[in-house]
Amino acid sequence: ASNKKLLILPGDGIGPEVVREVRRVIEWMDRRRSVSFDISEGVVGGAALDAEGSPCPDETVAAARAADAVLFGSVGGPKWDSLPFEKRPELGVLRLRKDLGLFANLRPAVVLDPLADASSLKADLVRGLDLMIVRESTGGIYFGEPRGIEIMADGKRRGIDTEVYTEDEIARVARVAFDLARKRRNKVTSVEKANVMQSGRLWRAVVGEIGRAEFPDVELEHMYADNCAMQLCSRPKQFDVILGSNLFGDVLSDLAAALTGSLGMLPSATLGAPDASGRRHALYEPVHGSAPDIAGKGIANPCAQMLSFAMLLRWSFEMEEDAKLIETAVQRVLAGGLRTADIMQTGMARVGTSVMGEAIVREL
Amino acid sequence: ASNKKLLILPGDGIGPEVVREVRRVIEWMDRRRSVSFDISEGVVGGAALDAEGSPCPDETVAAARAADAVLFGSVGGPKWDSLPFEKRPELGVLRLRKDLGLFANLRPAVVLDPLADASSLKADLVRGLDLMIVRESTGGIYFGEPRGIEIMADGKRRGIDTEVYTEDEIARVARVAFDLARKRRNKVTSVEKANVMQSGRLWRAVVGEIGRAEFPDVELEHMYADNCAMQLCSRPKQFDVILGSNLFGDVLSDLAAALTGSLGMLPSATLGAPDASGRRHALYEPVHGSAPDIAGKGIANPCAQMLSFAMLLRWSFEMEEDAKLIETAVQRVLAGGLRTADIMQTGMARVGTSVMGEAIVREL
Ligand SMILES: CC(C)[C@H](C(=O)O)[C@@H](O)C(=O)O
Ligand SMILES: CC(C)[C@H](C(=O)O)[C@@H](O)C(=O)O
Repeated sequence: ASNKKLLILPGDGIGPEVVREVRRVIEWMDRRRSVSFDISEGVVGGAALDAEGSPCPDETVAAARAADAVLFGSVGGPKWDSLPFEKRPELGVLRLRKDLGLFANLRPAVVLDPLADASSLKADLVRGLDLMIVRESTGGIYFGEPRGIEIMADGKRRGIDTEVYTEDEIARVARVAFDLARKRRNKVTSVEKANVMQSGRLWRAVVGEIGRAEFPDVELEHMYADNCAMQLCSRPKQFDVILGSNLFGDVLSDLAAALTGSLGMLPSATLGAPDASGRRHALYEPVHGSAPDIAGKGIANPCAQMLSFAMLLRWSFEMEEDAKLIETAVQRVLAGGLRTADIMQTGMARVGTSVMGEAIVREL
Repeated sequence: ASNKKLLILPGDGIGPEVVREVRRVIEWMDRRRSVSFDISEGVVGGAALDAEGSPCPDETVAAARAADAVLFGSVGGPKWDSLPFEKRPELGVLRLRKDLGLFANLRPAVVLDPLADASSLKADLVRGLDLMIVRESTGGIYFGEPRGIEIMADGKRRGIDTEVYTEDEIARVARVAFDLARKRRNKVTSVEKANVMQSGRLWRAVVGEIGRAEFPDVELEHMYADNCAMQLCSRPKQFDVILGSNLFGDVLSDLAAALTGSLGMLPSATLGAPDASGRRHALYEPVHGSAPDIAGKGIANPCAQMLSFAMLLRWSFEMEEDAKLIETAVQRVLAGGLRTADIMQTGMARVGTSVMGEAIVREL
């Protein structure tokens, strides 16, 4: 049996379609590089609701726990939009993050040369862009208690959420950001609203302490979240690694993704803490969602899912060479002029999901 | 005595410099249009800390309460950056918003034709952009209790903030947004994270109820905050009025401002509830901050402060004609080729704060 236990969770919408293309790469690796994975597949999101009545059944959590890495598609769609809160497909992701302790969500925003024109920003502002958002993903306002909608004495409703961070939660995700910065351009921009939020004040203090004590060689900058949104949109190349809470990281990483103009190209990883043997849980997924409007049409861009698989190979299986092979194949296919609808440019050849997938395998 | 009681709070950084240019306009109005204001001036922010030891002294709050409108400059700067939380200049603004019940912060993001090229976005994506962000400004995570940094049993720190909204707080700011939309392009995009936040779920429900019951003629769309950041950056012209909580409104309005590329041109208004006689407290300020790096150099752009004064005339004093005069004067000066450093373009004439101010008065 392989020591590479891989759980695949295609999910909803275009998830299964783009995951299918990764399967081709896996078959190719099996044939040509004699790498074999111990693969299982599970249900999550709307698909799991339909099959099992829960967006994240216990078996899925157990399978994810047992796996060395999880390749995730995407969840959600109009079919499940009117379900009560506890039955939202999104809870599938949230529960996996929480139960597996996947506290560091890494979202690169990279502009590949052939796609610099796809951005809504002027090409020279984004050409060569390569930034990384490190988002805390098991704490903050996503999970803090108390939370709920309550009826007050006057019969009116009141909605409550709690943003809460301990210094340990901040420190461990900060370390991930500093570590990454060392392998990149050595700069961390830590984002909060320390001017109005108490958790933001603590965030700023702890990140500063970790930086001074453990990473004095890494440049650290503190920035308010509103200003960061502004700077991302006006001068994105000033950033290397951006570190933020669950909520700010969510909004800023989507913004960063949007400004590349090629959301269909962006992978992400969510990592847990290494255990004594150095093994860490990890989940890899495209930044784009389930895109129900184009699901089933065969036109979705499989690149983000492919590149998520490349991240998986690199970080969970230490297969740097294979990861690079896939990344290079994707770049070559783009350079060759193939484009899915989302990144179509004049003069290029528009293709569907499977033609794109096949082309990538051919380039491998 | 005039019934137009105007309180001016220049604040810090470039605040006093740009407010000075508005004074010229006020003198011109006095001379040429026989409009007189009952003007007083007060301290706020760092200036107030230096003079009185508090970022918002009681006299300033009392003067603001007594005034029919407040013209505000900006607060903050490195001089006060290391002060403890309770002494931050920013508390000056926060206290005024809270004590005067200024719950609706209106931030237009407008691209004037001569400045379409100033945006980091491609000119055709922003040319003619005219959207309005309505941000709740006395509630949510900015003020919710409990909040603070506490020491846990294990001696470690924990930071806590509470996001809390009652249905009445949501309803009143939603009404402001719907009302504005009726005078514009009749569309409201309400922003939250109803998929992960309980206050967001309530926000979505209440805005929907108010829309259906009181504004069935206004198109209402609900959007997650992360998606809204994305959409603002990729297709900003899809929006008319964007409605959000204190926190989301803060981040998204700064983003919207940035994508105009001309932050130095953007005014804002923060409004309270009308009393029985229809009188409402209101504060007008530029969207840009105190810009300490250029303070005292005479190069700041006075336009945002001028346009804030125009908003004040329109909304607090019902002087539509005078408001239009100022707005037209600003546009003419730009069309004539004058530019302050922040909006400088090749082929234009670069001028300082007072030359810009004088030119605007001359165009009146
Ligand atoms: C699906 C949703 C709960 C999620 C989030 O808000 O975290 C998504 O936006 C993301 O960023 O992964
Ligand atoms: C000064 C600061 C407290 C303030 C805020 O966060 O509200 C500012 O960013 C703003 O938007 O007016």
